[in-house]
Amino acid sequence: MTPAQLLEGILHGSAAVQRRAMAKAITLLESTRADHRAQADELLTAMLPHTGKSFRLGISGVPGVGKSTFIETLGLHLVAQGMKVAVLTIDPSSTVSGGSILGDKTRMEHLSVNPNAYIRPSPSSGTLGGVAEKTREAMLVCEAAAYDVVIIETVGVGQSEIAVHGMTDMFCVLQLPNAGDDLQAIKKGVMELADLVVINKADIDPNAATRAQAQITSSLRLLAMHGNPDHAHHNEALWQPKVVQISALKGDGVEGFWHAVQEFRRLQTANGKLQTRREKQALSWMWERIDFGLKQAFRHHPQVRELLPRMQADVSEGRIAASTAARTLLQLAAQQGE
Amino acid sequence: MTPAQLLEGILHGSAAVQRRAMAKAITLLESTRADHRAQADELLTAMLPHTGKSFRLGISGVPGVGKSTFIETLGLHLVAQGMKVAVLTIDPSSTVSGGSILGDKTRMEHLSVNPNAYIRPSPSSGTLGGVAEKTREAMLVCEAAAYDVVIIETVGVGQSEIAVHGMTDMFCVLQLPNAGDDLQAIKKGVMELADLVVINKADIDPNAATRAQAQITSSLRLLAMHGNPDHAHHNEALWQPKVVQISALKGDGVEGFWHAVQEFRRLQTANGKLQTRREKQALSWMWERIDFGLKQAFRHHPQVRELLPRMQADVSEGRIAASTAARTLLQLAAQQGE
Repeated sequence: MTPAQLLEGILHGSAAVQRRAMAKAITLLESTRADHRAQADELLTAMLPHTGKSFRLGISGVPGVGKSTFIETLGLHLVAQGMKVAVLTIDPSSTVSGGSILGDKTRMEHLSVNPNAYIRPSPSSGTLGGVAEKTREAMLVCEAAAYDVVIIETVGVGQSEIAVHGMTDMFCVLQLPNAGDDLQAIKKGVMELADLVVINKADIDPNAATRAQAQITSSLRLLAMHGNPDHAHHNEALWQPKVVQISALKGDGVEGFWHAVQEFRRLQTANGKLQTRREKQALSWMWERIDFGLKQAFRHHPQVRELLPRMQADVSEGRIAASTAARTLLQLAAQQGE
Repeated sequence: MTPAQLLEGILHGSAAVQRRAMAKAITLLESTRADHRAQADELLTAMLPHTGKSFRLGISGVPGVGKSTFIETLGLHLVAQGMKVAVLTIDPSSTVSGGSILGDKTRMEHLSVNPNAYIRPSPSSGTLGGVAEKTREAMLVCEAAAYDVVIIETVGVGQSEIAVHGMTDMFCVLQLPNAGDDLQAIKKGVMELADLVVINKADIDPNAATRAQAQITSSLRLLAMHGNPDHAHHNEALWQPKVVQISALKGDGVEGFWHAVQEFRRLQTANGKLQTRREKQALSWMWERIDFGLKQAFRHHPQVRELLPRMQADVSEGRIAASTAARTLLQLAAQQGE
């Protein structure tokens, strides 16, 4: 199918045609073949005017916190209200194992068979930056297909939370009612990114959940006081990061969660921060890809490739200063390749 | 003076000659003139075999924590034992104000006039990466001049701690006996980098200091448990990050501090981690400078420069996908400039 045919299917196809066109479009966008890349860019540019109307919701949390149960419960709650819900995933471990936390669709057995839900596992190869790029592009496909909510799920390890925060309108962190857990999140800078912290499995130990809620709330206040100017949206916005309790398994609290999401969306739309956030995200995305491309071209430059191993050995063994080595290699790279 | 003459003065000059040669060498290394840069590289390469024997000590802490008093007390303690001590600074604010936290040498009035101490303020222009590079090179000059200890001081803001951690053998964080303070350090990931946490002004409120010591010790243990593999030196090494109390103003605890430093140095030398850390630092330094250089060359490429403003506007206003813009600009940059 041509990019124009794919777009037609995504925009105006019947349910089955649309679903097929979405899958084909995402596969095209994930392809690394050079001729596919040109078609992909054509599709992206044609698709863009039809994107941006969904709400982009990031959900993060360590393995075992109950993310899939929560997303299934939430997703079913939303489709029951007549919405279309897409679930995408960034799973950096899938690039190692070739598997994916969402590869096994039976994880969300009810949501995955719902005609108004679209679930797509994480791309399973490439760097985290590459995987994130594919997920961003898949999100655009879901938006063009008029999905109301796009949920981006990530496992709470490594840099993947930062990637998800960088592509969503609202970033939620799922936590267990457990003290060590929130220290880890603070340490990793994840808590600071959270617009909403969700304490899951609150029914198992209601006292611990309430203690955790109080603790995290006070941590969030302290973090906001010492805010990093890069993430200072909390200082100036009307929205103050919140902590809610839920039990995804029992379905308790999902309505309260969705209420908080809607309040956030309303505020951020009214004060213009949702738009600003998206503009900044698009620009950082562009620069992230440029940086990656520059480094890749550098490493593939024939003379750099030849000299690099010796330079690295000289630098690490102290025969040449790091800055001298960098200047030498940069001069080589500035000359035309071949 | 030629690089060879400078090196001769640094290595074998009398006290006054050495001090003059050091200052001239550092000024040459800080110069951005292209002809100076070639001489600087010549000097660096000739100097390298004479470097690496000093102990590189990083000292960080927010303004007001008492860093200069502490460094003066420590420095005088070390010169009294017959050592030569250099103090360098990374002060990112100096690149804005043109001033420097160490510009006013009267801050360390006794140490600064000691013939066995060498104090040099932060370079006052350029990016943090550029400033850090100059400080690294100045450190090599001090090492070639046979200084036993090189202290790198930084203000506890922004990314400067990470830069100092990336160029020292041991990274110490000064804290006040105050709870909000250590949460901030955890959040910023600074605590995680600390090999030693020093609670200063412990005499003002001994109970608070003891509470802070216990709190930080337990935080450090939790952080080590959930260790980021990138900073996992604490998990495998024999050294466990420690917390000590001092009162720099009264001179209490400085001996205990230095004892901990020596123990750290002995362990890390014996288990090979000191060497590994330096090798990794040199390689990261090289890559950091390469990344910076690539980005700079990209931004200065004539066609990129011409197209970039429009591309940025198109991306942030949603007319073109970020990945498409990145690919377009990278293709332009890959063509020969002019």
